[in-house]
Amino acid sequence: GFAKIDYHRELRKGFPEVIFCEGKTPYQVREIALAMHRKEVDVLGTRASREHFEAVKEVIDKAIYYEEARIISVKNTPLKKTKGVIGVVAAGTSDLPVAEEAAVTAELMGNTVKRFYDVGVAGLHRLLHKLDEIRKCRVLIAVAGMEGALPTVLGGLVSAPVIAVPTSVGYGANFRGLSALLAMLNSCASGVTVVNIDNGFGAAYAATLINRIGEEEK
Amino acid sequence: GFAKIDYHRELRKGFPEVIFCEGKTPYQVREIALAMHRKEVDVLGTRASREHFEAVKEVIDKAIYYEEARIISVKNTPLKKTKGVIGVVAAGTSDLPVAEEAAVTAELMGNTVKRFYDVGVAGLHRLLHKLDEIRKCRVLIAVAGMEGALPTVLGGLVSAPVIAVPTSVGYGANFRGLSALLAMLNSCASGVTVVNIDNGFGAAYAATLINRIGEEEK
Amino acid sequence: GFAKIDYHRELRKGFPEVIFCEGKTPYQVREIALAMHRKEVDVLGTRASREHFEAVKEVIDKAIYYEEARIISVKNTPLKKTKGVIGVVAAGTSDLPVAEEAAVTAELMGNTVKRFYDVGVAGLHRLLHKLDEIRKCRVLIAVAGMEGALPTVLGGLVSAPVIAVPTSVGYGANFRGLSALLAMLNSCASGVTVVNIDNGFGAAYAATLINRIGEEEK
Amino acid sequence: GFAKIDYHRELRKGFPEVIFCEGKTPYQVREIALAMHRKEVDVLGTRASREHFEAVKEVIDKAIYYEEARIISVKNTPLKKTKGVIGVVAAGTSDLPVAEEAAVTAELMGNTVKRFYDVGVAGLHRLLHKLDEIRKCRVLIAVAGMEGALPTVLGGLVSAPVIAVPTSVGYGANFRGLSALLAMLNSCASGVTVVNIDNGFGAAYAATLINRIGEEEK
Amino acid sequence: GFAKIDYHRELRKGFPEVIFCEGKTPYQVREIALAMHRKEVDVLGTRASREHFEAVKEVIDKAIYYEEARIISVKNTPLKKTKGVIGVVAAGTSDLPVAEEAAVTAELMGNTVKRFYDVGVAGLHRLLHKLDEIRKCRVLIAVAGMEGALPTVLGGLVSAPVIAVPTSVGYGANFRGLSALLAMLNSCASGVTVVNIDNGFGAAYAATLINRIGEEEK
Amino acid sequence: GFAKIDYHRELRKGFPEVIFCEGKTPYQVREIALAMHRKEVDVLGTRASREHFEAVKEVIDKAIYYEEARIISVKNTPLKKTKGVIGVVAAGTSDLPVAEEAAVTAELMGNTVKRFYDVGVAGLHRLLHKLDEIRKCRVLIAVAGMEGALPTVLGGLVSAPVIAVPTSVGYGANFRGLSALLAMLNSCASGVTVVNIDNGFGAAYAATLINRIGEEEK
Amino acid sequence: GFAKIDYHRELRKGFPEVIFCEGKTPYQVREIALAMHRKEVDVLGTRASREHFEAVKEVIDKAIYYEEARIISVKNTPLKKTKGVIGVVAAGTSDLPVAEEAAVTAELMGNTVKRFYDVGVAGLHRLLHKLDEIRKCRVLIAVAGMEGALPTVLGGLVSAPVIAVPTSVGYGANFRGLSALLAMLNSCASGVTVVNIDNGFGAAYAATLINRIGEEEK
Amino acid sequence: GFAKIDYHRELRKGFPEVIFCEGKTPYQVREIALAMHRKEVDVLGTRASREHFEAVKEVIDKAIYYEEARIISVKNTPLKKTKGVIGVVAAGTSDLPVAEEAAVTAELMGNTVKRFYDVGVAGLHRLLHKLDEIRKCRVLIAVAGMEGALPTVLGGLVSAPVIAVPTSVGYGANFRGLSALLAMLNSCASGVTVVNIDNGFGAAYAATLINRIGEEEK
Ligand SMILES: Nc1ncnc2c1ncn2[C@@H]1O[C@H](COP(=O)(O)O)[C@@H](O)[C@H]1O
Ligand SMILES: Nc1ncnc2c1ncn2[C@@H]1O[C@H](COP(=O)(O)O)[C@@H](O)[C@H]1O
Ligand SMILES: Nc1ncnc2c1ncn2[C@@H]1O[C@H](COP(=O)(O)O)[C@@H](O)[C@H]1O
Ligand SMILES: Nc1ncnc2c1ncn2[C@@H]1O[C@H](COP(=O)(O)O)[C@@H](O)[C@H]1O
Ligand SMILES: [Mg+2]
Ligand SMILES: [Mg+2]
Ligand SMILES: [Mg+2]
Ligand SMILES: [Mg+2]
Ligand SMILES: [Mg+2]
Ligand SMILES: [Mg+2]
Ligand SMILES: [Mg+2]
Ligand SMILES: [Mg+2]
Repeated sequence: GFAKIDYHRELRKGFPEVIFCEGKTPYQVREIALAMHRKEVDVLGTRASREHFEAVKEVIDKAIYYEEARIISVKNTPLKKTKGVIGVVAAGTSDLPVAEEAAVTAELMGNTVKRFYDVGVAGLHRLLHKLDEIRKCRVLIAVAGMEGALPTVLGGLVSAPVIAVPTSVGYGANFRGLSALLAMLNSCASGVTVVNIDNGFGAAYAATLINRIGEEEK
Repeated sequence: GFAKIDYHRELRKGFPEVIFCEGKTPYQVREIALAMHRKEVDVLGTRASREHFEAVKEVIDKAIYYEEARIISVKNTPLKKTKGVIGVVAAGTSDLPVAEEAAVTAELMGNTVKRFYDVGVAGLHRLLHKLDEIRKCRVLIAVAGMEGALPTVLGGLVSAPVIAVPTSVGYGANFRGLSALLAMLNSCASGVTVVNIDNGFGAAYAATLINRIGEEEK
Repeated sequence: GFAKIDYHRELRKGFPEVIFCEGKTPYQVREIALAMHRKEVDVLGTRASREHFEAVKEVIDKAIYYEEARIISVKNTPLKKTKGVIGVVAAGTSDLPVAEEAAVTAELMGNTVKRFYDVGVAGLHRLLHKLDEIRKCRVLIAVAGMEGALPTVLGGLVSAPVIAVPTSVGYGANFRGLSALLAMLNSCASGVTVVNIDNGFGAAYAATLINRIGEEEK
Repeated sequence: GFAKIDYHRELRKGFPEVIFCEGKTPYQVREIALAMHRKEVDVLGTRASREHFEAVKEVIDKAIYYEEARIISVKNTPLKKTKGVIGVVAAGTSDLPVAEEAAVTAELMGNTVKRFYDVGVAGLHRLLHKLDEIRKCRVLIAVAGMEGALPTVLGGLVSAPVIAVPTSVGYGANFRGLSALLAMLNSCASGVTVVNIDNGFGAAYAATLINRIGEEEK
Repeated sequence: GFAKIDYHRELRKGFPEVIFCEGKTPYQVREIALAMHRKEVDVLGTRASREHFEAVKEVIDKAIYYEEARIISVKNTPLKKTKGVIGVVAAGTSDLPVAEEAAVTAELMGNTVKRFYDVGVAGLHRLLHKLDEIRKCRVLIAVAGMEGALPTVLGGLVSAPVIAVPTSVGYGANFRGLSALLAMLNSCASGVTVVNIDNGFGAAYAATLINRIGEEEK
Repeated sequence: GFAKIDYHRELRKGFPEVIFCEGKTPYQVREIALAMHRKEVDVLGTRASREHFEAVKEVIDKAIYYEEARIISVKNTPLKKTKGVIGVVAAGTSDLPVAEEAAVTAELMGNTVKRFYDVGVAGLHRLLHKLDEIRKCRVLIAVAGMEGALPTVLGGLVSAPVIAVPTSVGYGANFRGLSALLAMLNSCASGVTVVNIDNGFGAAYAATLINRIGEEEK
Repeated sequence: GFAKIDYHRELRKGFPEVIFCEGKTPYQVREIALAMHRKEVDVLGTRASREHFEAVKEVIDKAIYYEEARIISVKNTPLKKTKGVIGVVAAGTSDLPVAEEAAVTAELMGNTVKRFYDVGVAGLHRLLHKLDEIRKCRVLIAVAGMEGALPTVLGGLVSAPVIAVPTSVGYGANFRGLSALLAMLNSCASGVTVVNIDNGFGAAYAATLINRIGEEEK
Repeated sequence: GFAKIDYHRELRKGFPEVIFCEGKTPYQVREIALAMHRKEVDVLGTRASREHFEAVKEVIDKAIYYEEARIISVKNTPLKKTKGVIGVVAAGTSDLPVAEEAAVTAELMGNTVKRFYDVGVAGLHRLLHKLDEIRKCRVLIAVAGMEGALPTVLGGLVSAPVIAVPTSVGYGANFRGLSALLAMLNSCASGVTVVNIDNGFGAAYAATLINRIGEEEK
């Protein structure tokens, strides 16, 4: 009744539908997960609380929970690995939940992921120090809250496409991520595109589609 | 004095610095263009008025003006063509200036571009009718104003990455493109990333970086 | 003291006053419901919590609670049934509480209701698949959160009036429903009107007035 | 090239595509109008300046311009008249252009229209005085700027559906119509739905679809 | 240390300083109240929780708490009564806490107050029915949430000054009182001034200053 | 046709309807003014341009134009003078047009007005220097742009009611008067009420109603 | 893993990195504090809850907690005292937590601090009374919520630079500190600069850099 | 009449009042300038158009106009030079008018100024290249539009206080400087304070007060 799973999505997009758990009851998430699992489709649940996970775990024993990333995963098909590396670059320690949502999603979608955390531009040497390694990535995800300057500085230094993820980290005139979002949309650096505030999942999904271009067509 | 051209950018990004003409005087644009031209660097000027162009034309005879796209171009190096196609999909006739900014930029950066114009989702058959052709593109740019629904519908139908460009087309609660921008940032379809309102140039630049992944590594 | 029930409303509008429970104490809701019930008027309470319901249930035994729709109903007059069907079309599973508020309200006001749930435009075939059935409805209510694209796509496909209900489903740049609200107000499709964020009740009320035009004048 | 006219729209919606002239060049409007005219389709252009009209008039001699309503019309098919009356109720003299856009659109779509102008709620007797006549309308369009109170007061007095049109009339904290828009979306009166700021056309279109329900099914 | 009570205020304004309790600890409120009480000054605490009151009650036995109005009062000087009546007019049951804050404040400042509650404009006869009584008031306070239309309708009917108080009652596009606030600031009716959202106290204070003009100068 | 003059307003409010000229054509203003003039009613037009005035002057020779205040006046009834003084206090030279709109309106409505201009709080001594004179006023109108601090400082020093008028003077984060408006609504001083941005007329009207209380009842 | 402490910062800025505790787990704060402590670096944690402090206290016995200021401090190097005084001026009792964050930060960074609390401009004599003492400070921090007028009045009276800190104290149209923030950015007084809402720490840091100019160069 | 020049300001602040020309007529500016000039006070006019200047020039022959900075200056007292250098760092060519307003103001107030222009963070080497010179400045003014990242990167590299000036350079989601303003208020770097959008004058004034601390106390 309450959900019409889009099984056709895998054909169109290359990946099955993903469950956005926030705002759904544990019962709803469990039922959707189970229906997909029974069809031997991969299950990915984002923004999942521990309660969501436990409801799923009860009926699907092999379900795994990534605490910091808030992700539920049930793998039912063999992982198609890509070789090109996705780099996840994050500004501060408080941005980690979003960065992890991006990194874990990308890994579960078959990508090799490198993490570059706590390299915000207020202490520039930390980023510059990692630059050689960062430049080896095929796609970059840049996660930052507050003034959201990281994607611009990064975007000015690399030739890979940069997907910017503003986070809601901050207070006051941050307006729950608005300051970082606007900064990223107005980036002076070219090659930067933006996803919704805290949307690590969306960034990883787009990064995967891009990374696949580099793989599959060869 | 007034400009410090970033000649090093070509090495870092693969493309020379681009001149954002709006807010600069024709004199400033001409001087910057001339300095670059003298170094035999490609000149690309966006958001250029006819006045900007005429100032440049006076000193660089081979300068070309793309009226609808508001772009000035001076080509000084051979065009490195990519094979993968970038599709520019636009919702309405009023979105054309932004769509053309994207299409012309992408062409000047060496991409093959296909235009799919006036295929907004209020008359869905127009889009569905072009779907086979659209699915052959390696990267898609989706341009729309008002409610900005096109990237979501498109993103649900294709496996290529979609770069969404909100336009300031509309009135009232459109708030100069805000409605389309927010819609695109909140897209239910996965694989959609967003650039600034009316930023056709930025979308084309990111699309080019992505398209190159598919080319250069082979 | 605290409430002046508008008993005259039934004469003017065709329906008695409705109790908006949110922000009222269970005691206040019970007293208003009881006063109306004693006058043998139909009682409808919206945005009612279980606490509100229990307070009413104590004094009016036949009171019914629609959990998902958050509605309290006490039927004291025979239901005047209309024949024209109101279709309630909802984008995602998380939009269900609002869709149910609309559907239950419409049913309690005498309409026949058809539900089309989880047919968001990111998986377009789900909607197209139901189109024949949807086209048989006399009035449509389209419920969607996030980018709010459903009413536009729907409005482009049908000749019935569409009442769009933005929901607060989403996060980040959704700003509690603002993105969907603005999208719907800027809809490219004609024949779409909009009610407040999460206002399933208001959409059903307007749909009923419209549906009655088709009935009563014959 | 620049426009893909949706000739199929008449079948789906009962009316051909309408040209939104603002933001299009006179040349573009003329070409679209001419293409439609040649197919013997009715042409309706909204938000048209005198320049737009003159460009059309040059090639379609029977084109008519409604100055205050800013509408261009070319009638190529016999008018299907409905009997049910649409009432257009406007608060102040400054709201007239929007009210006229609604009234003229409704007339061109075959409705009988009654105008009730300058009956804002700051002088309530003006509205109450017209109430008997207003109550005879099958659908109502309520146009108001500034604090946008008219649709609420009207909606409390009638049993017809009310379509509220906020206008950008006002200054300061009006924020170009935002105050009236928000007021209307938050209306305490039931049966009120809302369209975009200054969107007289959209209100008339929805009113026509509703009015037709009362006509055609009989 | 933490507070510098402005004992001089009574001389300048005619009333002693008032304690805004929200955001202060019960301990802070008690200390300030006690210091004032010891100087035999009247104590008025607004937005006081029961916890605030109990802390004060412990040390000042004659302290009184007005639950719905959230007001603490300690009367240490004889009440100077004015004769002119202040009318408090409120739209809905949910607006009562704010209306009571206004009414109780006005009474504690020596005014005679008349309450007209639940007379919102969606059921206009309720207000019109009370009009004769309302017209006898020297100053009016109009309290309303949602679309905030009451002060405009009222202001069009009376010759007394109207102080409008927007409340945060509503949801969705109400944005915590913003819709009502903007509506009131844009009122078409003349003689309406506005205070902050939910600021019943401020309205009563200004109404008292006005009411005194009518008294004291005679 | 286009205007329904509310001749009854004088009975209800004590003053005839006032013409808000902005957004009306010179022709419309002239016709409304003439109709009122023929009924020997006082004509007051606010936000009138010189073009508006000249259209009126053509048909009503005794019409007067107050340039800085942008007011048209035609006096047809004897002026009923009040004795209580209204003080108009303005922060900066740039606030003068709004201050003059207030002052001239108040004078035309029969009040004695005292002007205290360019006494902004950044140079506090200017205000303190005038305090004795200001304290003699029965009602105060405080006009300020930018940070809008004047009404708070003034309100803390006087026992008269203060009507605050935010102006759109400023730039950047002023957002056309929003900063001053919000500051005034959040004033720490009691007895301050607020009107719309740049609404000198509205402040004067409310001040007159208040001033009359002090006069007429004696 | 989760944090890359910027030990180099002391060389660049003169102070080691500071821990922003909000949004970090007690475990994360403890680990960062411990790592810094082991390197004998001073530890400063802002926006720290008692839970954060207790986690740190467990492993660093000499850690101190400033309750009202919400600051954790571990001093490992001798305090370099400056002589120039920083004055912290606060408008109301509710602004104290932010004022204390500023004052304690400044003290821990080696400054002599003078506190001037509860001297808001609604009771101007309180501020004027302290003016001689305030004028002796080399740098001033002005903390205020609601209408945020204090920095303007202060800035008009002194020749020292004023750093304004808007607080989120207020309700309604305060929008969590936005009213005070905008007021301060639009200050008519010269020499006023602004930090983020509630950012007492940032104000103290900047004040310290300024105060040092006066010390170190001599 | 219209202006009350604050001649006392020089005593309080160390500088005479400055004329904000925008929104004043050329006549008003001329009269204020002349009055000050006659008292042999220095005249500084900001945001002055060429028309303003010409009106002043007519009566004060030695008046000077700084075109790009939009500043009028009449020097009547000997310049008290400070030695400490103020650095003005600007991101892009389009930010020059604001940067020049800051630089010229600072020079006219007696400071030595160094300009570092077109060193935005999208091409980081340009800034790093100048770092040694920048570090020699006692106070820094950082001017940037769009994403406003410059002050954060700069603030992370230097120990001088940084005054950030957001500019309105940009388009779309820039919202006339809002993106840069919010970014700067949320800066991760410590020691950064912010002034209003485009307020080069205000930044220079505050920088001068700070620079003087380093000079005068020695
Ligand atoms: N974290 C996320 N952020 C945004 N969209 C998501 C997220 N997780 C899943 N989705 C998308 O949300 C849609 C599911 O919506 P629903 O029908 O409400 O479950 C799917 O199309 C997903 O691709
Ligand atoms: N869910 C709802 N959303 C909006 N308005 C409602 C809702 N439920 C009831 N109402 C209306 O709210 C008004 C009642 O307001 P009150 O006097 O505060 O009870 C009535 O006019 C109802 O028709
Ligand atoms: N400057 C003004 N600001 C706000 N309202 C005004 C102003 N001048 C006149 N009004 C009011 O605007 C209404 C006239 O609106 P309209 O019918 O459009 O002429 C009248 O009720 C006047 O009292
Ligand atoms: N460009 C500017 N931006 C902000 N404030 C300014 C500017 N130029 C001058 N001012 C200040 O504006 C005030 C003058 O306002 P007014 O009385 O309207 O001339 C003075 O206090 C100046 O210090
Ligand atoms: Mg860190
Ligand atoms: Mg089209
Ligand atoms: Mg779904
Ligand atoms: Mg009128
Ligand atoms: Mg009620
Ligand atoms: Mg002045
Ligand atoms: Mg206090
Ligand atoms: Mg540059």
